[in-house]
Amino acid sequence: MTDPSMRLPDPFLAALEDFPPDFATAEAADLERYGTDWTTVYPPHASLLVRPRSTAEVSRFLALCHAHRVPVVPSGGRTGLAGGAVARAGEVVLSLERLRALGPVDTLGMTVRVEAGAVIEALHAHAAEVGLTWPIDFAAKGSAMVGGAIATNAGGLRVIRYGLTRQWVLGLQVVTAQGEVLELNGALEKNNTGVDLRQLFIGSEGILGVITAATLKLTRLPAAVSVFLFALDSLQAVLTLFEAARQGPFTVMAYEFFTDKCLARVTRHRKLKAPFEVSSSHYVLLEVEQVEGTLDGWLQSLFDSGLVTDGTLAQNGEQAKELWTYREAISESLSATGLPHKNDIALPISRLHAFCVDLEVLLQKSYSDFELCLFGHIGDGNLHVNIMKPEAMDKAAFLARTHEVDAAMFDRVRAHLGSVSAEHGIGLLKRDWLGHTRSPAEIALMRSLKASLDPQGILNPGKVL
Amino acid sequence: MTDPSMRLPDPFLAALEDFPPDFATAEAADLERYGTDWTTVYPPHASLLVRPRSTAEVSRFLALCHAHRVPVVPSGGRTGLAGGAVARAGEVVLSLERLRALGPVDTLGMTVRVEAGAVIEALHAHAAEVGLTWPIDFAAKGSAMVGGAIATNAGGLRVIRYGLTRQWVLGLQVVTAQGEVLELNGALEKNNTGVDLRQLFIGSEGILGVITAATLKLTRLPAAVSVFLFALDSLQAVLTLFEAARQGPFTVMAYEFFTDKCLARVTRHRKLKAPFEVSSSHYVLLEVEQVEGTLDGWLQSLFDSGLVTDGTLAQNGEQAKELWTYREAISESLSATGLPHKNDIALPISRLHAFCVDLEVLLQKSYSDFELCLFGHIGDGNLHVNIMKPEAMDKAAFLARTHEVDAAMFDRVRAHLGSVSAEHGIGLLKRDWLGHTRSPAEIALMRSLKASLDPQGILNPGKVL
Repeated sequence: MTDPSMRLPDPFLAALEDFPPDFATAEAADLERYGTDWTTVYPPHASLLVRPRSTAEVSRFLALCHAHRVPVVPSGGRTGLAGGAVARAGEVVLSLERLRALGPVDTLGMTVRVEAGAVIEALHAHAAEVGLTWPIDFAAKGSAMVGGAIATNAGGLRVIRYGLTRQWVLGLQVVTAQGEVLELNGALEKNNTGVDLRQLFIGSEGILGVITAATLKLTRLPAAVSVFLFALDSLQAVLTLFEAARQGPFTVMAYEFFTDKCLARVTRHRKLKAPFEVSSSHYVLLEVEQVEGTLDGWLQSLFDSGLVTDGTLAQNGEQAKELWTYREAISESLSATGLPHKNDIALPISRLHAFCVDLEVLLQKSYSDFELCLFGHIGDGNLHVNIMKPEAMDKAAFLARTHEVDAAMFDRVRAHLGSVSAEHGIGLLKRDWLGHTRSPAEIALMRSLKASLDPQGILNPGKVL
Repeated sequence: MTDPSMRLPDPFLAALEDFPPDFATAEAADLERYGTDWTTVYPPHASLLVRPRSTAEVSRFLALCHAHRVPVVPSGGRTGLAGGAVARAGEVVLSLERLRALGPVDTLGMTVRVEAGAVIEALHAHAAEVGLTWPIDFAAKGSAMVGGAIATNAGGLRVIRYGLTRQWVLGLQVVTAQGEVLELNGALEKNNTGVDLRQLFIGSEGILGVITAATLKLTRLPAAVSVFLFALDSLQAVLTLFEAARQGPFTVMAYEFFTDKCLARVTRHRKLKAPFEVSSSHYVLLEVEQVEGTLDGWLQSLFDSGLVTDGTLAQNGEQAKELWTYREAISESLSATGLPHKNDIALPISRLHAFCVDLEVLLQKSYSDFELCLFGHIGDGNLHVNIMKPEAMDKAAFLARTHEVDAAMFDRVRAHLGSVSAEHGIGLLKRDWLGHTRSPAEIALMRSLKASLDPQGILNPGKVL
């Protein structure tokens, strides 16, 4: 760990004179703002902010940092939720935000070359002009940048349809800790020529190299989608419906679930009517496209079988949006109506039910005063586990007890062969739990990769490992 | 490179006594058979064949090899076309064929755990019993094994629909050169916990570790598919049709192309009628599923626009199979009617046309006596370039001249940012050309990964690097 009081070496500071005048800044407001991300629990302590305008500048700057052992936090839209972009020990923040060019869309190859600092929403608009999209879609897309999405292998709402970010990156331009520029894979769909080095950098949270540009794979915009909301009386029913949906006469775009506790907070905060007259314990939002035949028949079969207690199919785009709101407003509503302690975990789908039973037993036994708000991308085995602070409980006492719950819950995640971080990454927040998902041999191998690619340990020190 | 006359060390041979009696064999016929793959150009020279029955045996055996610096060739169905599974310098062949268990299919999670030696066709039959499939499909699937498909990141006929093997592997069990067993990712769809180590081993052709088992992701069997065959008068038309097809009212399952020269050899060898009355220079096989609306209207629009010179839509499964034969019988027909010199290259789709123009100029200028038979998975930018030996030319002279053509062609592949191996891998066959696709920095990084994972260099020595 770097000394929080570190002072940047004088020869390093002198060499910065060779960069453009607005390349670096040490303004307190900038350091405060760029030193943190959406995780918010770590006080920022950056010593410098640099904002290169080209890959060549990134390369020259990293070579300089390497020479002087100056630690660097690569920085995109800073929407991460695991502290991966936090500078808390005097690091230099290397923001990619000025590298935001969007190249022309290649409609034949369905690709586009973009710089790392391009905002995902801007990329979506750019590709949509020719009927295409980069199908990575998550709540923070208005601020999140392509480079950050790649560095964290971002997931989101439609992983069940399109997969994770990893699948939508053809080429990667990466600058190593020594300042070497790697051009990996170009615009090739197929290239079986040894180890696929792109994959090392995708999802490695900036500890192995700095992503400066990418050639992205695009797909056509979905045709009309249909959106269902279902009420069910158990998690088992949610899973049985999932199995039925994947055999349904359509392509599943999203399969999202939430409990009555989440719904209650959404309707309270957003002042919405409940979706159904009679409330149920579990809800599923199902979005589909490419429908063969009629959906009414399929819906009727669900009612007939008794699998769902209620259900509705949006009749137009407006209604579809309304149904999505019940799911998309959950995070915001939990924060607006209380203090949630959040976790983002994954289980093998076949273990979801057994895990949730274990979790419920744990909470009932030792933490019966905690309200559990469970939702997530259940079609990917991904649960967002939110525990709400009881109103009467002191915040510090709550945080201490959530740490205990985490320890007990992660033991159960491990027992069910799950992951302590489904899509948010490890960053700082989950570092102490890494060993619950990755074996000592895996961690040793990651350390050896890190030592080999970044021998001075200057890239995002203290993150992940 | 290992000395071809190497003799296995006595202490190593003595330690083999601790394995079951039929674990190892040095029978000449076995060494001949297991020492080679479908590449056939390298005379086999294996010193021993071992066939473990468990991961524990693989682990124990590799630890022994590591201790005695005995080189090992990991071996599956040996259907590779780049010499990746050839033992030509006295190596021990480690066959995974006895590790072939197919676990029960998890229909909720849509996964299955299989051992590396499971034959792909057997896996397909196993999953089809519950309406699912592992969508990796290529000609050699009756012999090729899951472990080999993963180690070579196999492609095949439906990459445009399903992607490469990489996308269909959830968990990987790998034994390292030191005999350590790594269990990577289990059955998780999402697991953003640092570097995704699975990806190191997928496609690395056995030089970093030995794959012993995998948890595979399955998908449902496709519904009814529709198959078109089109005749066109230029490669540009093939590409324009491709762009139109990806915007068509369906999901593209396969987009394959071949020239009149390929078709002529197929009809001659298979004694088939030509598909259309008037012959054209280019042909496209298009397979689609999930059709919205009617295909007749779409087909008519192609005729109206003049994009295709002729076209047909199979009216039933029998006709669909007949149309596929024109494409699938090409490899076999080229070999049956002459001596083809084969290459498997990839280009960015946007560069395909310019590359093919360059290739044609090259051949016309310097090799006008060579017949070029071009076909392949053009929707993935993947061309199978086959040059036929002129009947009057001596075989040795032909091989010498094809080496010259390769050099000139690979220069053009590099100039167009392509790959010297789209899906067959590097193995021994393309090792000298690796630098045409991967930069010195990439090759250095691969070497450092190799040195870190296999410090004694015992795993598939001489392959790839």
